[in-house]
Amino acid sequence: MRIVVQKYGGSSVATPERIKNVAQRVKRKVDEGYKVLVVVSAMGKTTDNLIKLAREVSPKPDTRELDMLLATGEQISAALLAMALKDLGVRAKSFNAFQVRIRTTEEHTAARIVDIDDGVIFENLKDHDVLVVTGFQGVNEKGDLTTLGRGGSDTTAVALAAKLKVPCEIYSDVDGIYTCDPRIHPNAKKLKYITYDEALELTALGAKVLHSRSVEIAKKYNIPIYCASSFNEEEGTLVVERLPEWLEEPVVTGATISHGQIKVTVSYLPKDANLLTAIFNEVAKRLVNIDMISLVPSNGDLFLSFTILEDHREDLEKALQEALKGVEGWKSSYQGGFAKLSIVGVGMRTSPGVAARFFEALKRVGITPELVTTSEIKISCLVPEEKAEEALKEVIKEFEL
Amino acid sequence: MRIVVQKYGGSSVATPERIKNVAQRVKRKVDEGYKVLVVVSAMGKTTDNLIKLAREVSPKPDTRELDMLLATGEQISAALLAMALKDLGVRAKSFNAFQVRIRTTEEHTAARIVDIDDGVIFENLKDHDVLVVTGFQGVNEKGDLTTLGRGGSDTTAVALAAKLKVPCEIYSDVDGIYTCDPRIHPNAKKLKYITYDEALELTALGAKVLHSRSVEIAKKYNIPIYCASSFNEEEGTLVVERLPEWLEEPVVTGATISHGQIKVTVSYLPKDANLLTAIFNEVAKRLVNIDMISLVPSNGDLFLSFTILEDHREDLEKALQEALKGVEGWKSSYQGGFAKLSIVGVGMRTSPGVAARFFEALKRVGITPELVTTSEIKISCLVPEEKAEEALKEVIKEFEL
Repeated sequence: MRIVVQKYGGSSVATPERIKNVAQRVKRKVDEGYKVLVVVSAMGKTTDNLIKLAREVSPKPDTRELDMLLATGEQISAALLAMALKDLGVRAKSFNAFQVRIRTTEEHTAARIVDIDDGVIFENLKDHDVLVVTGFQGVNEKGDLTTLGRGGSDTTAVALAAKLKVPCEIYSDVDGIYTCDPRIHPNAKKLKYITYDEALELTALGAKVLHSRSVEIAKKYNIPIYCASSFNEEEGTLVVERLPEWLEEPVVTGATISHGQIKVTVSYLPKDANLLTAIFNEVAKRLVNIDMISLVPSNGDLFLSFTILEDHREDLEKALQEALKGVEGWKSSYQGGFAKLSIVGVGMRTSPGVAARFFEALKRVGITPELVTTSEIKISCLVPEEKAEEALKEVIKEFEL
Repeated sequence: MRIVVQKYGGSSVATPERIKNVAQRVKRKVDEGYKVLVVVSAMGKTTDNLIKLAREVSPKPDTRELDMLLATGEQISAALLAMALKDLGVRAKSFNAFQVRIRTTEEHTAARIVDIDDGVIFENLKDHDVLVVTGFQGVNEKGDLTTLGRGGSDTTAVALAAKLKVPCEIYSDVDGIYTCDPRIHPNAKKLKYITYDEALELTALGAKVLHSRSVEIAKKYNIPIYCASSFNEEEGTLVVERLPEWLEEPVVTGATISHGQIKVTVSYLPKDANLLTAIFNEVAKRLVNIDMISLVPSNGDLFLSFTILEDHREDLEKALQEALKGVEGWKSSYQGGFAKLSIVGVGMRTSPGVAARFFEALKRVGITPELVTTSEIKISCLVPEEKAEEALKEVIKEFEL
């Protein structure tokens, strides 16, 4: 039995017409002799609209109930796609998280998949060719519905593929992974291959390529992910452990911008490791993501800088107040209007001088880097929002992306 | 532990504002010392919109998938109401059909509740004051979602009340049960009490009072149902087994019209009981409701007349073709433009002459009854659509409704 997992994103199932189009694509795969597990996202803006609705009822919706609410979005598209498939004569059936027993961890709005019941899947594949599964959601130990966070349907798809040890195809409105955002940079090059590590850095940096958790799982179980468009037949990008040997490794594979960054500086902190732990604990408790952390000692005090997204400012201030209760003299300041510009590439490991070329390119457009963080295969730099696109263009030119 | 079941209909939860209003009402009941099981319908026109969406994907949506789709409507309102309750400091939690294990029979779009897991309910009532349960839906033996048919949330509520042996309150945009439709007849009288049998006849006859299955269950388990408005505090109607003794039994309790009737006549049927059985079996298989059956023998043949709703014409014709395969000479004819006018009242049993007064009233507006059916507490008559309202007015006058 040849099985494949296919995932279709929100814009691919945004209208009845598009759902019927997806049904045709799935049917073609069935006609090729495959059993297909289809994972679907909610239609178009459904999730956003449900969140809006929740906010009209409650200023800060209870997260358990929010998950209960949001999970309906994928159930709608799964049911509709199964209808469309049956109309094409395909033996199809839809499943929600309860039915296919997608077990997750406890935490609402950001749960992680623990297991999926492949017994249910194999049982149903006996007399069905397509099982349509709701993405983005699961059920925790308490029997409550959970969701996996933005883009979580990718993770559902890859987790299913990993469980069944079959390949995974992810379809969206973008026909692959590019060196930079093709909607902004028409000269962006599509990559035929990208490694898990590079894809991870790119997604973590804000490129809306794949949900980062999905890449983690794919890497762990070595599941190849094929990313392509559901709107055309163009060749997409294959995400793999290692590039094929015949392929010359580019030094830099991609460049990306993450907008809406706020730079936070906490000044005059006493030099006390306990305080830092307290800060990071309180921040984590409130699910605030902080990034680009930099710590500078000065005259016996510490100056801590990092970035957060605009939405998290209020929660962060509460975390600081809580962590630094009783501490005197510290000050926090917030500076908005920043973007994070990053370059990624496994080739960096073996090519010295990449950072120099990166900063040189920034200098050419008049940017002096302030916060900088690096990993083995990535350099990120905080730049003023109004110069971000210009800087990205210069970087793209420098590395011929 | 004092427990009550409250059900809120679609218009009562149609907007975020109304959901918050319902939350306030539920909270008041909690403040009085009750544990409340709230059953909710889908918001406003949600179910209709989902059906429309399904039809855009498939001309005749698969019913299993349709149920999967429609079940999302109540999950949305349940989650939102639980959010609103939590904001008021009420310990509340929402449940879908999987979570509270509402088991139903197999058939999609018209399933019947078989059982509800009161273990889950009592367990959760330990640390919650309000459990919000999705109405209208259940899960069958196969683990598929089912729905209970239009108005099925009433049935969920009464079934819950029956299971727990507690009273049931049903809130909608109508503040009780009236002698006739108050939206059309401003002089309609609200009933303080009505018997299960009368309510059953009224709902079966098209008065949108209560889902008939819900009244059947209430009657079987002797659960009083209180019907009132969620928009005001006016006293509603109590549906009970027997009227209080001090209350004088009116002869006729209510009058109602059911529109959109088609009269079907099957002529020149051979006098053969097997054929009739075949017809009714084929009709039942296609879930076509036929009503007002009348059978007239003539010259060795049979003439069979009955009514159906306009939507069912195509299915009915298929049923006839199938049942009468090989039979020659029969003909079917369809005549639209009819309404069914009915009067109901337990007093009819003991008051002769009600039928005479009914037909006399119809005669006064120039109607000669064609199809007529009666039960112990009901008389129905097929009348031309364009004269239906006038006839109803005359009947209301005759019986002082």
